[in-house]
Amino acid sequence: ICACLVGSEMCIRDRDKIEVVAFDADDTLWENELYFQEFEHKFCRLLEAYLPAPAVSQELFDTEMKNLHMYGYGLKSMMLSMVETACRITGGKGSMQCVEAIIGLGQELLQKPVTLLDGVEEVLLRLQGRYKLVLATKGDLFDQKRKVAASGLINYFCHVEIMSDKKEADYQKLLDTMKCNPQNFLMLGNSVKSDILPVLELGGYAAHIPYHITWQYETHEGNIANPNFIQLKNIKDITEYLL
Amino acid sequence: ICACLVGSEMCIRDRDKIEVVAFDADDTLWENELYFQEFEHKFCRLLEAYLPAPAVSQELFDTEMKNLHMYGYGLKSMMLSMVETACRITGGKGSMQCVEAIIGLGQELLQKPVTLLDGVEEVLLRLQGRYKLVLATKGDLFDQKRKVAASGLINYFCHVEIMSDKKEADYQKLLDTMKCNPQNFLMLGNSVKSDILPVLELGGYAAHIPYHITWQYETHEGNIANPNFIQLKNIKDITEYLL
Repeated sequence: ICACLVGSEMCIRDRDKIEVVAFDADDTLWENELYFQEFEHKFCRLLEAYLPAPAVSQELFDTEMKNLHMYGYGLKSMMLSMVETACRITGGKGSMQCVEAIIGLGQELLQKPVTLLDGVEEVLLRLQGRYKLVLATKGDLFDQKRKVAASGLINYFCHVEIMSDKKEADYQKLLDTMKCNPQNFLMLGNSVKSDILPVLELGGYAAHIPYHITWQYETHEGNIANPNFIQLKNIKDITEYLL
Repeated sequence: ICACLVGSEMCIRDRDKIEVVAFDADDTLWENELYFQEFEHKFCRLLEAYLPAPAVSQELFDTEMKNLHMYGYGLKSMMLSMVETACRITGGKGSMQCVEAIIGLGQELLQKPVTLLDGVEEVLLRLQGRYKLVLATKGDLFDQKRKVAASGLINYFCHVEIMSDKKEADYQKLLDTMKCNPQNFLMLGNSVKSDILPVLELGGYAAHIPYHITWQYETHEGNIANPNFIQLKNIKDITEYLL
């Protein structure tokens, strides 16, 4: 597999080496960041009497980063960091109704139906049987399990890995579980930081599928010069490399 | 394996059939419920101007049960349910300082060192090599991973399973992962509801190790009449059955 164009033909090397194709879930298979950002906008409105929205957002991000080593990723972590941020911004003098509103909005989101992104089911349908398909997502175990179940996609995957983080060591554990060498592994996802770089670092293949919004934590600057890297426009384009 | 006493000799059948020995973690390998109950007592004191402690505890338990299908188990879930309960009990008119205190106490607990229970390391040391040892715990993925790492016990286990629940289906998945039949599986834990009954139901073996305090949710009434059930007084007693 390589991502270069020869004339108008894509050059595909080593395709037969790929055995396991792993998909990120949030913002790769289904909507997520959009809902998180809507939640954050509502949170900012709750505190607009104290601070302008961009400053509230920055305070929240700072709280999330401070708490990441204690809470990990996911919606419950975000809810707790919002409550803490609200206490801090209001100097402990805000109304508890603001806290109640945060809890209520978070619980709504925890029960929201899963919306698949365009082309996802078609791609899984075409790849299954030819490759071992894996779902590899990070975040809250309980909420991710709910979303996997609600997505209706579970039968496409021979393995679901809910990771507490997506660093090299976490991918190595997944490879061990799958008894797969890095050179036989392809990861697809929307986050360069979490889905692409650690997999390339291990010697695996990684394909980036852009999503229109990215959480500040996941943003990445700079180009990737690695022959195992594939830049896609759309999840559907991966079939041109794999089929 | 059977739990009967013949004279003063324990009768041990089928010991050679056991291949995998799985341990619950919280309150089986290390302290947990004690810390949770200390947290709850402090929470009750924060609200004593509104309601007496037993009524606050009951309100919290009701909130936790209402939220279990959204939050799952673990400390972050408890913190969120405490915040919600505080809002409700104070009619949304309480002080945000109470909410700040809940967040602060929860974060303290999320960083608390892990305290192993008596006899644990000795038992693991004696069983390792003769059995495949597994750590099988439910709760928050991130916090449980932290505790596993902090316990210093990781090298005793050939597999760690952090389950979102401990129902029959969850144990069946663990058995599948381990490629182990129920009749070759023994589970040890302090919760009859989560560690014993589902495993017996699947046809596996289960040993109960009492712990001096039990979360209201995990309490169980009634005797267990099953030849695959073992009642222990102490984790160390399992070596008499297995060695």
